[in-house]
Amino acid sequence: MPRIDGYERVSGTAVFPLDVILPNMLYGAILRCPHAHATVKAVDTAKAREMPGVHAVLTDADPEAQIGWFSRPGSAGSGSPALSRLFDPHCRFEGEEVAAVAADSPQQAWDAVRAIRVEYEVLPFVSDMEAALKPGAPDVQEGGNRMGNPRETKRGDVEKGFAEADVVLEETYRTSCDIHTCVEAHGSVVQWDGDRLTVWDTNQGPFPIQAALAGALRMPLSKVRVISSYMGGGFGSKLNLGKYSVIAALMARKAARPVKLFLTREETFLAVGNRPAHIMKLKAGVKKDGTLTALQLTGVGEMGAYPAATAVGYQVGDLYKCPNVRIEETMAYINAGPNRAFRAPGFPQCSWALEQMMDALAEKIGMDPVDLRLKNISTVCQMDNNKPYTSTGLRECLSEGARAFNWKESRSRPKGEGPWVRGVGVAGGMWGSQNGPPATVIVKLYADGSANLNMGAADLGTGTKTVMAMIVAEELGVPMDRIQVENADTGNTQFTSQSGGSKTVYVDSPAVRAAALEVKSSLLDMAAAQLKVPAADLNFKDGEILAETGTQRLALRDLRQLQMQQAVVGVAVRGPVQSDKVVRPFVTHFAEVEVNTRTGEVRVVRMLAAHDSGRVMNLLTYRNQVFGGFIMGLGLATMERRILDPVTGKMANANWHDYKIPTAKDVPAQMTVLPIDLHDTECNTTGTKGIGEPAMIPSAAAIANAFYHATGVRITAAPITPSQVLTLLAERKTKG
Amino acid sequence: MPRIDGYERVSGTAVFPLDVILPNMLYGAILRCPHAHATVKAVDTAKAREMPGVHAVLTDADPEAQIGWFSRPGSAGSGSPALSRLFDPHCRFEGEEVAAVAADSPQQAWDAVRAIRVEYEVLPFVSDMEAALKPGAPDVQEGGNRMGNPRETKRGDVEKGFAEADVVLEETYRTSCDIHTCVEAHGSVVQWDGDRLTVWDTNQGPFPIQAALAGALRMPLSKVRVISSYMGGGFGSKLNLGKYSVIAALMARKAARPVKLFLTREETFLAVGNRPAHIMKLKAGVKKDGTLTALQLTGVGEMGAYPAATAVGYQVGDLYKCPNVRIEETMAYINAGPNRAFRAPGFPQCSWALEQMMDALAEKIGMDPVDLRLKNISTVCQMDNNKPYTSTGLRECLSEGARAFNWKESRSRPKGEGPWVRGVGVAGGMWGSQNGPPATVIVKLYADGSANLNMGAADLGTGTKTVMAMIVAEELGVPMDRIQVENADTGNTQFTSQSGGSKTVYVDSPAVRAAALEVKSSLLDMAAAQLKVPAADLNFKDGEILAETGTQRLALRDLRQLQMQQAVVGVAVRGPVQSDKVVRPFVTHFAEVEVNTRTGEVRVVRMLAAHDSGRVMNLLTYRNQVFGGFIMGLGLATMERRILDPVTGKMANANWHDYKIPTAKDVPAQMTVLPIDLHDTECNTTGTKGIGEPAMIPSAAAIANAFYHATGVRITAAPITPSQVLTLLAERKTKG
Repeated sequence: MPRIDGYERVSGTAVFPLDVILPNMLYGAILRCPHAHATVKAVDTAKAREMPGVHAVLTDADPEAQIGWFSRPGSAGSGSPALSRLFDPHCRFEGEEVAAVAADSPQQAWDAVRAIRVEYEVLPFVSDMEAALKPGAPDVQEGGNRMGNPRETKRGDVEKGFAEADVVLEETYRTSCDIHTCVEAHGSVVQWDGDRLTVWDTNQGPFPIQAALAGALRMPLSKVRVISSYMGGGFGSKLNLGKYSVIAALMARKAARPVKLFLTREETFLAVGNRPAHIMKLKAGVKKDGTLTALQLTGVGEMGAYPAATAVGYQVGDLYKCPNVRIEETMAYINAGPNRAFRAPGFPQCSWALEQMMDALAEKIGMDPVDLRLKNISTVCQMDNNKPYTSTGLRECLSEGARAFNWKESRSRPKGEGPWVRGVGVAGGMWGSQNGPPATVIVKLYADGSANLNMGAADLGTGTKTVMAMIVAEELGVPMDRIQVENADTGNTQFTSQSGGSKTVYVDSPAVRAAALEVKSSLLDMAAAQLKVPAADLNFKDGEILAETGTQRLALRDLRQLQMQQAVVGVAVRGPVQSDKVVRPFVTHFAEVEVNTRTGEVRVVRMLAAHDSGRVMNLLTYRNQVFGGFIMGLGLATMERRILDPVTGKMANANWHDYKIPTAKDVPAQMTVLPIDLHDTECNTTGTKGIGEPAMIPSAAAIANAFYHATGVRITAAPITPSQVLTLLAERKTKG
Repeated sequence: MPRIDGYERVSGTAVFPLDVILPNMLYGAILRCPHAHATVKAVDTAKAREMPGVHAVLTDADPEAQIGWFSRPGSAGSGSPALSRLFDPHCRFEGEEVAAVAADSPQQAWDAVRAIRVEYEVLPFVSDMEAALKPGAPDVQEGGNRMGNPRETKRGDVEKGFAEADVVLEETYRTSCDIHTCVEAHGSVVQWDGDRLTVWDTNQGPFPIQAALAGALRMPLSKVRVISSYMGGGFGSKLNLGKYSVIAALMARKAARPVKLFLTREETFLAVGNRPAHIMKLKAGVKKDGTLTALQLTGVGEMGAYPAATAVGYQVGDLYKCPNVRIEETMAYINAGPNRAFRAPGFPQCSWALEQMMDALAEKIGMDPVDLRLKNISTVCQMDNNKPYTSTGLRECLSEGARAFNWKESRSRPKGEGPWVRGVGVAGGMWGSQNGPPATVIVKLYADGSANLNMGAADLGTGTKTVMAMIVAEELGVPMDRIQVENADTGNTQFTSQSGGSKTVYVDSPAVRAAALEVKSSLLDMAAAQLKVPAADLNFKDGEILAETGTQRLALRDLRQLQMQQAVVGVAVRGPVQSDKVVRPFVTHFAEVEVNTRTGEVRVVRMLAAHDSGRVMNLLTYRNQVFGGFIMGLGLATMERRILDPVTGKMANANWHDYKIPTAKDVPAQMTVLPIDLHDTECNTTGTKGIGEPAMIPSAAAIANAFYHATGVRITAAPITPSQVLTLLAERKTKG
């Protein structure tokens, strides 16, 4: 089923926040600190204020800008202690907000920003987590560069486990800091209407944005309306309120005109999040028969300048059966933009380490990597008191995936004579589906049999609207092209949590089904009254109400009460589910890569992704999700990396020219999605578990394993760039 | 309580449909027939199509314009037989649609309209109802100029009644055709988004517009969204779909761009409705003691070129107790714009006749006009099987009104020596509150105690939003400034009927109350679960949940489930109420006028309006309604009149310069509203009966009676213009 808004999306008629144009609208621009670390001594806006077209200038000197900004991005308001102010005179990273301007045109706004004179005191900086944790490093935050105490998770006795092992390996893996680089930059269009604020904002769900904005501006929730019906990519970077939204709202109030404030591409590289770099020291013990005896992870994460914890240990503790586990994680501040959630926060990093380790262990004990994983499957959640999973499709992902990928044969095929050599790799993964906060959904059936679905959930482009409409179609027999969806508008749609954590379908679709059932039940009540038979004896099918005896039938157009009120409305709240089971999607990715031993080029030529995400709602958008996720992992594995200049601490590749992401030319020629279509009847009424994040978790690791298979060289530090490849191949030659 | 959107309205930030500006928007203009009666022989658009900026031209030759237009304005679609087409080649009135253009600017659109060459065959016309009903008159509609058979209502035996009377009077009264002249002209802004149509339309309720538009364009209801959150006056003329909306939608589809199509002031005078002129021959019999014995009305109404029945007889049959009644009404077609509902359709006309007649009867039997009315009060609905009224405040309106107006004393005060003479008059009235179709309302209480009211009802400027928000405030204890109202949007709000018939508060407010009660009940359920006490033992008051024992209390911020889901939603449907009683608001207006016997000037210097409309929800907006209604009646009585040129049949005063409406300078210096604040507990849960239309029903008649009291001359034909006054005064002198 193609996306129901496919036409709007491809024809350009869909109105994204960036497309919103309001009469009389001003354009905002933000002056950001150009230094990795500095304090603002003075801000002189006199010249900027007099420039043509300028209607508002905002700095830390404005009383209304005295808004505290708290530990999580997007948490603003009046509590304490604040970590920063809206325009904080202590700039802890390149790109922190210093001042802002609203003017008649973007050009005038930027000219005025450039005319603001700022006196900075440049401070020593630190832009590397290992350096940051050394004594004597410049403090990013008061109290040092260690974000709280290390987190520790323990199970069993790892020392005993390592002693029991036949093989113990230890390796340090590294991932780089990657940027979300959403196609649509971050930003808002804001409009005041009396005491009411309307915000067209690009985010992953408007309700938390509404709450955070109401908090920041000290307004009632009812007076803040956030609309996010279309958005152009988030990947976790649009879960939170941005300072830009607050700045736009304050300037709009000051100027008494609407303000559009969208960040430039460069600003999004610096200031709205990233996947933090990680160093993961992993030690693993295994018996000759493939039984894991112990896993020990010591991780350090590079959080950026403000707290935003991304932990990487979960899969070490839960994916494979292992009695002895120890995980210790440290988070370090550096002078760079803080991280935010990024598609399966921590999980692709963890896979990079754990799945390469599994590969190495398998080699050491002479076991097939698929078989080693099959040997260690758990059906209970070891991280949560051994509660059973609602369903465990990892075995099917591995075995059916291997069969479909032609794993055995591919593994033994000659690797080639060079310069191009080839190899195949496998990696597994899991995701922690969240129970999720409640969701309220309204379904309306019109008197002509068409329907309207009103839900709060944002559609990140993943096809949420389509999947939800399919449920309405399924329950009420309404053709898809007669269903209209309203979504992601705090004014007119109902609360749900953000689209993130791969939980949108999982949390919201049961509410959609329940609301549709409410509609059905109201229809039957109406028909019962009209036909004078008990509602229990009636069914609704194909737009008609049928008595069970089969003798009476009533078309919607003859249902008097419905015709009179033009529509019937069903509302349902899906509350948080109490369960003694744990919901987990599972995944296995297979990759085939070609490596040019002369140039260091790596290309992924074939992939297969086997997913257990519960019921497949819509194969087309399911496949899209998996392709997108795999390719994002390909970026992590082979090209993406934020580069901080060691001399200045400034980002050297804050643009799409220098920061490389996969393009159509990097996509594998052959891509296969193999859904393990297990309807998870225990987790909810639609049998779904979530696909968005699982889709990217193991792909980088599968590519790394395939690279090793092709070359015999283990690349522990992502990304696998040509220069790194050539260096490592040369090292092996030297050593060999 | 001031209007909650008062700031937006007075500051100009409220976005009325006319204010909607969309990127890339075109402007539409309609070519209208300049003749009172003609057929279109040929339309040549070649030149117009080539003019700069023109993107769409639409005529009857376009297949998509083949849309039938049915008996009621706004009833379009595929049924049969249609009365006209979208662009009908038979133009039955000056202003019928012939072609349309959409262009980059309004100027370009009008230039192109002027460049379209139309060949008309001009036909004989008729522009007067009496002429139209004579044999040999030109036929406006096939089948002649009589719209159906005369309608007849009979009760008792009028001949017997007249025989029993001590006094029988007969008089012929006339009212003119008046134009609604809303401040905001009629029009739409339309935008296609794939297969979905969004229409910002100025109307009195978007749901019937949605249904009619979906019918005309053969689209599912779910794909047509009509938004009417603000509108600038309707008075009945914006109850129906206009051809302009359909034309705009077709041109927008053709040009693949949004189209704004608003009528000019002149077009609204010609083509979007009026209050039809009426000739009412009324015969009445009364005993010396004031008992009415018989009433007989023979009415002719001037319908315009298409069917749109406005009957005038209702109050003759129901307002005063009378055993013998006969009403016969004929509707005549003429070559002029068809009428539409206009504030209490038929009732001000009827009052003009009936209340002047009551005045004349009182004089003949030497009784005070107030006393004659008090003598004939009915507490049952004589027009509906003598069912009792839910409440009857007419007695209080008359007696308390007379006391407050100082009636007896004013009546006997010297009238003056001239040229200025003065007099006082009284008139009564009633309105038929409609049961109304169902209404669905959603109330949302946010976790911070602020609230959102989602209702389909349009706010015509009467304060509907404010009154409905007050009910939410009353039930949930939310301060008014923390309530946000979303309304009149078929996409995001729920069905209700149009704001018309003075039924909005009456029909929708009980649904608002019920939805708020749903919210309350959900809150108590949540609290019961948290406190582990039965919900029945809990109360919600001032933002807190209290246990009846008084020992436990829970603030909203501590209600965990509410905080988790950010809001709780209550939905309620108010179904049509089955009742064996009849709901009727009652009214009495008192007026004091001054007449200049030398210049013919008439000025109303004092008025008092006593209303029984059930509970007064908001005195401020209640008074606004009454003042507006009274002044509109003043227009009917003294200045308003459509003038059709007898030579050409064209309207001679289709503009605000020549068509006079009351201005601030015509408003009485002293205006008093006396609410008879009877909570009508039998009619609904808010005790309301409706005020909008009663406010204008008897005011013209009260002015006419005051004019008679001042001058001794009975003016039976509205409006009482200076020239008519001077003619009649001169005639009396001649006769006298």
